[in-house]
Amino acid sequence: MANKTELTLVESHLINKGEQRVYEHYSKTLKTSMRFAIFLPTDALTGDKCPVLYFLAGLTCTEQNVIQKSGFQRFANRYNIIVVCPDTSPRGEDVADDDRYGIGQGAGFYINATQAPYAENYRMYDYVVEELPYIINQSFPTNDKQSITGHSMGGYGALMIGMRNLENYKSISAFSPIVSPQKSEGGKDTLKAYLGDDSDTYLDLDPCELIKKLQTYIPILIDQGSSDEFLVTHLKTELLAKAAKSVNYPIEINMRYGYDHSYYFVQSYIMEHFVFHADYLDAN
Amino acid sequence: MANKTELTLVESHLINKGEQRVYEHYSKTLKTSMRFAIFLPTDALTGDKCPVLYFLAGLTCTEQNVIQKSGFQRFANRYNIIVVCPDTSPRGEDVADDDRYGIGQGAGFYINATQAPYAENYRMYDYVVEELPYIINQSFPTNDKQSITGHSMGGYGALMIGMRNLENYKSISAFSPIVSPQKSEGGKDTLKAYLGDDSDTYLDLDPCELIKKLQTYIPILIDQGSSDEFLVTHLKTELLAKAAKSVNYPIEINMRYGYDHSYYFVQSYIMEHFVFHADYLDAN
Repeated sequence: MANKTELTLVESHLINKGEQRVYEHYSKTLKTSMRFAIFLPTDALTGDKCPVLYFLAGLTCTEQNVIQKSGFQRFANRYNIIVVCPDTSPRGEDVADDDRYGIGQGAGFYINATQAPYAENYRMYDYVVEELPYIINQSFPTNDKQSITGHSMGGYGALMIGMRNLENYKSISAFSPIVSPQKSEGGKDTLKAYLGDDSDTYLDLDPCELIKKLQTYIPILIDQGSSDEFLVTHLKTELLAKAAKSVNYPIEINMRYGYDHSYYFVQSYIMEHFVFHADYLDAN
Repeated sequence: MANKTELTLVESHLINKGEQRVYEHYSKTLKTSMRFAIFLPTDALTGDKCPVLYFLAGLTCTEQNVIQKSGFQRFANRYNIIVVCPDTSPRGEDVADDDRYGIGQGAGFYINATQAPYAENYRMYDYVVEELPYIINQSFPTNDKQSITGHSMGGYGALMIGMRNLENYKSISAFSPIVSPQKSEGGKDTLKAYLGDDSDTYLDLDPCELIKKLQTYIPILIDQGSSDEFLVTHLKTELLAKAAKSVNYPIEINMRYGYDHSYYFVQSYIMEHFVFHADYLDAN
């Protein structure tokens, strides 16, 4: 990746004194054309180096959902944080897909697939951990501080990627995350399709296992709606709470009474997540 | 309208400590089934009477756009203001429609049509001014204070309806409004389709004419993006600025440098509009 990746600007809007942009580029990791959204706060627009928060979206989403519906820009600009929102899977006619919910396009789960036909393109883990930050740092005024957050499947991605790469991120947060794909309804089918039958490989991708092995402390914040329609079947927040407790890991989990799984919930606590990350990103 | 209108709850989400709901009901004015969104802040949920802000959406929108993309709920709850978002026209298979942009479903322009085939259902003026507030006041804990705002075509609706009904509203605001439909690109076609050829009837629906005849003062706030792609052709903010100046009417118009026509612009100044309306609604 010696040459600078060519970025094509798809859209750009001024919002809250920053700019919300969407770019298209060819991903060498995913072997297809991808889009990502990036919010540049005022400081970044005037050339100051800013920290970056990666915001991973949920099943069926693209880079558009977070930027249109979460209302994060007000707080990203307040704290001068660059926010990068990738798509949720490789895309395109030549990219494998599946009719089953939770597998295929829109459902990359931020992991590297090892099984045909997914192994060819589905390497969202490498894309989010390596290629995308490399591209962002090449083209935008970033400093060396990164944090990661996400919603639902993206909340899972944030927890899993953050816990596996402690040196890369200052803090981790998640809205309504899937905390253990292998114990989530339909999750075994997804893992089998991407990773094959050896369930040992699932353990290294399970936040409930990863948290027991963390070598150093990283701040983790989770917000979850108590009326979330996927809480009991897919998300199972209590499994992570128990795992954290078993090793006395001081994770912060807020069960928010009455909130559901929608972006109305994300919007309700988006400020708190920026206050949290700004602290660890030394953003101001 | 002696009997209480039956409302069917379509969806409800907790957001920012209030509830964002959508209801369906039969409209006697529009002679078809309609949806509206209503945000109930904490105080309203606990039975306290709150003021109401009507928020009118733009061309092609439904009641969904404002509630998903403007981020108003944070500020509506902060000031304990009920926010009502109607659809932008009558809807349904039996309701007249038109292939031309700016006429038919999604393009009601908040006026009462007098021409076939629109006269039958297209009475959005009466719906917004009379029937909808009647329904809202019957079913929700409102006090006697109302204000009105809107975006684009809805900004036009807010200006026009507010100026024609000074006794009903405490304050008027608009984001990126069409300030004179008859001078807007395509606007004459819309007015002709709904109102016929007599252009005298257009004058009473033109904010640039109405502002010259206001008998009492009502506070008016307009925010407009300078990079709005419709500014020169459709919106023509300067016509209202000139009309206000000609009668020394103290309207507040903010030309916001670099912003476009999207909801990213609305979201950028939504707080300021709630601060504005809260003042005149005695909301807190």
